[in-house]
Formats: sequence, C-alpha cells, structure tokens
Amino acid sequence: MSLIVRTIVKKRDGGELSEGEIQDFVTGVTEGTVTDEQAAALLMAICCRGMSTRETAALTFAMMRSGETWDLDPHGFVADKHSTGGVGDKATLVLAPLLAAAGVKTGMMSGRGLGHTGGTLDKLEAIPGFKTGLAKPEFDRLVSTLGCALIGQTGSIAPADRRLYALRDVTGTVESIPLITASILSKKLATGAHAVVFDVKTGNGAFMARTDDARALGKALVETTRETGRKASGFITAMDRPIGVAIGNANEVEESIEALRNAGPADLLENVMLLGADLMVAAGAASGTDEARRKLAAVLASGEALEKFARTIEAQGGDPRVCEDTKLLPQPVRTEPVVAPSDGVITSVATRELGLLAIEIGCGRTKKTDPVDPASGFRILKKTGQRVEKGEPLLLVEFGPTIHPAEGYMKKVESAFTIGAESEASPLPFMVERL
Amino acid sequence: MSLIVRTIVKKRDGGELSEGEIQDFVTGVTEGTVTDEQAAALLMAICCRGMSTRETAALTFAMMRSGETWDLDPHGFVADKHSTGGVGDKATLVLAPLLAAAGVKTGMMSGRGLGHTGGTLDKLEAIPGFKTGLAKPEFDRLVSTLGCALIGQTGSIAPADRRLYALRDVTGTVESIPLITASILSKKLATGAHAVVFDVKTGNGAFMARTDDARALGKALVETTRETGRKASGFITAMDRPIGVAIGNANEVEESIEALRNAGPADLLENVMLLGADLMVAAGAASGTDEARRKLAAVLASGEALEKFARTIEAQGGDPRVCEDTKLLPQPVRTEPVVAPSDGVITSVATRELGLLAIEIGCGRTKKTDPVDPASGFRILKKTGQRVEKGEPLLLVEFGPTIHPAEGYMKKVESAFTIGAESEASPLPFMVERL
Repeated sequence: MSLIVRTIVKKRDGGELSEGEIQDFVTGVTEGTVTDEQAAALLMAICCRGMSTRETAALTFAMMRSGETWDLDPHGFVADKHSTGGVGDKATLVLAPLLAAAGVKTGMMSGRGLGHTGGTLDKLEAIPGFKTGLAKPEFDRLVSTLGCALIGQTGSIAPADRRLYALRDVTGTVESIPLITASILSKKLATGAHAVVFDVKTGNGAFMARTDDARALGKALVETTRETGRKASGFITAMDRPIGVAIGNANEVEESIEALRNAGPADLLENVMLLGADLMVAAGAASGTDEARRKLAAVLASGEALEKFARTIEAQGGDPRVCEDTKLLPQPVRTEPVVAPSDGVITSVATRELGLLAIEIGCGRTKKTDPVDPASGFRILKKTGQRVEKGEPLLLVEFGPTIHPAEGYMKKVESAFTIGAESEASPLPFMVERL
Repeated sequence: MSLIVRTIVKKRDGGELSEGEIQDFVTGVTEGTVTDEQAAALLMAICCRGMSTRETAALTFAMMRSGETWDLDPHGFVADKHSTGGVGDKATLVLAPLLAAAGVKTGMMSGRGLGHTGGTLDKLEAIPGFKTGLAKPEFDRLVSTLGCALIGQTGSIAPADRRLYALRDVTGTVESIPLITASILSKKLATGAHAVVFDVKTGNGAFMARTDDARALGKALVETTRETGRKASGFITAMDRPIGVAIGNANEVEESIEALRNAGPADLLENVMLLGADLMVAAGAASGTDEARRKLAAVLASGEALEKFARTIEAQGGDPRVCEDTKLLPQPVRTEPVVAPSDGVITSVATRELGLLAIEIGCGRTKKTDPVDPASGFRILKKTGQRVEKGEPLLLVEFGPTIHPAEGYMKKVESAFTIGAESEASPLPFMVERL
C-alpha cells in the first residue's frame, strides 16, 4: 500500500494524521504525485471524520508553505480582515482606506464572487481603470507610500489550495470546517499580515447559515491564526439580510463612497467600526475599542478616509474622480421596482436567493468565464421587520446595458420577500457574538 | 450544484440514496461523465457512512446492468459458488466437475490472484494448453454438453465494477461491506446462475480477518442475491491456516486431482462437500444436505468426477492426461525445506504473510504485468495445533525454473510459523458458522 493510501485509510478509519503525513499529502498535491481521485478521497474522509485543531493547523501551514510567503515586517505593522462572504458585503472598500487614514497600514488580498456572494475584486473593477492584479513590489510600494493596497490573489500564493479548492467544488467536499479553515488561512497567512480580524457571517445568506457552524469556523480561524504568533480576533455577524442598500458592483462602490463620506447605511458603518476597532487596538493605535471607534469616527468625519480611497484608486490605475462624482461609475440603463403584494411586515428576506438572482443579472458569475455587468444590481428599500403597504416598492432592480432578464424574473425577486405578521419577524442582532 | 455533487453531499451527510441517484451514478461511471475524483469522493462517503440493504441492492443491480447480462435459463438450472479468497483455496477446481458429474450444471467465472490470495484462473492455466478466455457461445456449449465450464471474466461483464474497482484500490476505499458486496455480486449475478453458495473466509489469511466482518459481508451477499429471486446460501469458513497442503498453481491442480480421486486432504474435501451439498439441494438433486453429501461422495468414489474434470480440460484446450499423470504439470526444479527452530506446538501460521511470500516466488502478481511461475509454491507439512520437533520440516518451498529468491527468503517463510505451548493453539473450526 502506498504512503498516500495509508494516510487515506488512517483518516477513513477516524485516526489523527501526523504533521508528516499531512505535509506529504500537501506536497503530493502541489507536485502532482497525489492524483485527483486520491486527493478527493482524503478530502471526503476529512469531511466525514473531521480534524483536530493540531491537524487543521498542520494542514493550513503545509498549504501556506506550498507557495510564496510574504514578509511584511519591513512595513512595521500591517492589518488584514477576512469575511466569510455575504450579500452586499462591501466592508473592505470602506475599512481599508479608513484604517490607512487612521494610521494603520492595510494590505488586503481579495477574491472574486463565490456562489451567491459578491466579490471585492469585481466591485473594485467597476471603478474605471482600477487594476487589482498587482505584483508584490507594487503591493509593497502602495503599502509603504499610502498605507493601503487592494489586490487580487496571485498565482504564487498557496498553489495547493488552488488545486484542492477546485477539487472540493466538484466532489461535494466544500462544507468542512477544517478544510474551509485551511483554505482561508493558507492564503491569508501567506501574505504576512500581523493581525487579522474575522467576520464570520451567519443566517440565510451566509455559507454557515447556522450560528453553531459559524462559531465553530470562527473559533478555528482565530485559534489557528494565533498559532502562527499573529494577532487574531473576530465576530459572528448577521447575514439574514443583505448589508446596506446596494447589491451589485458599481452601486456597492457608490455606497462605499457614501460611507466614507460618513453618510452610509447604519449597518455598513457598524460592520466597519466593529472590524476596524479591533485592528486599531491590535496595531496599538488605540488602547481599547471605544477609543478606537472614536478615532475612526473622527477620521471618517474629516474626509481623510475618502481622500485615502481616492489616492488608492489613483495609485491602482483607477479614476479617483468617482469619489467626487459617483455618476462616473457604470450606470444602469433601466430600473424596475418590485412592490409589496400585500400589507404587512417583512418577516424574512431570502438573502441567498437574492444573491443568486443578482448573479442572474450580471452581478457575478456562474462559470469563471461569465461576463459581469458592473452596472447591474439591486437597491433594497425595505428590510426585515419593516412595515409595508400593498404596492409599496420593496426593492429596485437596476439593469446594466448588457442585461436582458429571463421571463418571470421580477416575480422571482418579489418572492424573496416574505410578508406576514410583526410577531413573525425576528431579525438577528447585527453583531451576533464576539468570537 | 450538479446532480452527482448533490448525490455525493447527500451520502456525505449520512442520507440514504434513492435507486435513481445510485443508477445515475453508475451510468455516469460507465459512460465517463462522472469523473474519477467524483467517484472517489462518493466511494469514500460510502465507506464512512455505509449503505442500507436497499442501497446495496440498488448499487449491485445498477453495476450488473452496466454491461452484458447472461440468461442461463435455456440450460435449466445452473449453480455457482463464490469464495472471498484465501491461501490454498482450490475448491472450485474440485467442486465444478464434481457437481457436473452429479448432474448439477455449473458455469463458473473466476478471477486472478488478488493481494495475498491465489487465483483460480492462474491455477487452471498451469494445465498445459488450458484456455480460460472463452466467449459466451463456447461457455454455453460447454455447460450444455459437459455441464461444466471454468472461464475468466470477460470485458463485457459489469464494466462499472472494473472502473470502480481500479479506483478503490488507489483511494483507500476497498474495505467497505456495501462496496465489496456490489463488486462481487454485480459480476456474479450478471452471469445468470440460478443458485449461488458463498464461502466467506475468516481468520488471519482472509480479507475479512474478523468473524463479525465476515458475517456482515456474508449476510449482505446472501440477502442481496436473494433479492434478485435467485437461491443463495453460504458459510463462514476458517482461513486462519491455508486449505490443504499445496499453495501455488500447478501443485494446487495436482492436489485438486488427488481430491477428485477421493484422496485429497480432509479440509479441502470438507470445503467441497459443504458448498456442494447446498448447491445439490438448491438444484433439487437431493432433499437435504445429508443425502447430498452421500451422493457427492459416491460420485467421487466412482471416478466420474475426475473423468468430468478431464473432459472439461480437454474441451477447454488443455491436456487431459494430467488427470492420470500429474507429472505432466509444470514441475519445480528445486525444493528446500523450512524446519522447526525449536520443539513445541505450532500455535499459529501467519497465513496472509505466507500468501505474500508465495507471490514473491511467482505464485501470483504484485503488478498486473508480473509473470507467474506455475511450478513454484509451498507444500505445508505441519499445521496449527500439530506438535513438532526441532529440525523437523514444517514446509517445503518448491522453486519453479524462473525463480531466484532474494537473500533471507527462507528465514521469512520460517517466521510465518509460531511455535509455543499447546494451550496457545486455538485454530478455528473449519466451518465457523452457516450464514
């Protein structure tokens, strides 16, 4: 029996893998000596039998070491965040320039849309000219001159994760806390930030819909990050409704600019403050989260955060004038309202479905090669718990120039809203718990 | 999410798959639309979560229908047997001609050596000229004229099993009762026998070393076969020591011929009688197993069984004179004894290791392309429970003309025997239990 088959059988039978066995597996995945079917079998055995904290850490580090690892020590202290993803989640766009303006350097490596959720890269690329595919030297230059860089994943970071991620997607092995943890952290830790704050979403628009699952993932993320000697903290936050008003790409940039003008929706601002305050404290820029929040609020009010965003856009090849005039962003050619079919209170919003419906009009991709229409999206006018009258608009659908929705599309958007009695509405508090 | 991924996730989460889901999977495996990594993931999920009797039956039937299915009804009643494999297991060579001579038609499709066990096809091919690769029309001709055919698996039987079997071997998904059951039965049932008797081995030379596992597999085999409306019965028998005296190929044919002369070792004869009596009763050739045994013993004593073997050999292209003169079989060029290193009682024989050591001298293959030396093998002179004196031969190693054993080989064979106090020897009864 070959070594890899022995390792598979050990995990299949519920054993704990050694660091060496995990390292050999990841090396084999990276070098191609472990076949797809063997990797899939081990991934499924991990899904079924789980992994200890020690095994999860070993898997994370082995995957992290499968590619380039960045040393950000020359920058002093660099902060990072990770969100497990949701609908309307544009926190990175606000948080990164805000922290940089407050004196905390941020270098954030973001991804594209995944499943029903939007992607920070797709949003940034809605800004005319904005480039996310920056190499390490450009990243370093931006962090040292502006204190802020917003880039995409490079091929040299965690190649083992790339191969395993593609396999998990087609083999039903996505939903596994140790595998999700290792996938997220192998990339996050390879880019060398000194502190990471985790935003683990829960509710019907989150990958971890149940709070118990979100807590298990969040704890694994925080603990494994701390094992590398870096600072880590995090929150479970509500994703039983979208964040803010805008769902899409250009419209989410617009909403982020409003937030940087200190005029954004309350839940988006709360999200940014929650994550930002922890990173301020981690960076030593505030002695506690209350002080951190006060400092961040002052920076927002001063306009420095918006100015930092403009300079970052400019440095990354984009048109900074969008910060003054959001009409320079791609605009929809047509909008159509979805109205309440009856009087009552919105008792729930099918957030995941709303995310999928946004993808149908070009906000994201079903296949990697699908085009995105940055001008398409939704504007949420009413949220869970709000009273509505029959005929009152619940949501505006904004159609970009390339979009021709299928028959019955508006009806499907309407049915994402459930209207009933007030007693049936029980939205989650925005901050569900600190991890 | 594609259909196959939904099916994988359902099993991963412990669900029961529907007949349609199982059929779609097997169709995808056969037609190549399910990838190796997807098949491996589902196989591992089945290993971890198990399958109900209903699911196992659905998997068996879908795999059986992936290729040709034979209708043996024109022959009236055809009997078959299946052994899970062991060391020195030559029962088929004796049982098939014996039953045919007793008036019960047998058409047996056998395999090659697997792991540490020998293969009936390799044994038959030790007979000069003997051909096992017969097509269906020749098989039919033999069954109708002689009542006996001994053939190899054809490529048209259960192609889904061939692909899944190759995958299981490299993905650590061999040891699963539902998968083993479906693999065995998809081939066995496709060839259309009306009754099957199962010989499930247990002990240190069996694939199912623990009796509990052997019982679970045996019950699954019998129950699933009965679900097709065919007769099925079976036994758990001892494989904590080799069967008979000969381990190899030509020497096992010689021992089978001795058994057909009514002069074989007692355990081999008991094995044949046990399986044969059940099939005699199933065929209606005897009213109970006692009567069946008496009839089989009479046929053996009359020489008709040996005569039937000679005619089968002749019909399949082999030299029937081997039945009169076994020296016409390939002969070893050199024999060497392994002697007892001390006085005492043989408390155990490492049967699996003995099987693997036999493969090292050409009795079987490590790789599919390895050559077999039919003249190589072992003759067991002492078995578990027998008293031996220091220096007394325990086993003779017979070396075929192509074999040059590695340094230290004889020492390794010696260490397969453990000699101790009489109280430490507790061999299994030959028939452990009826299934």
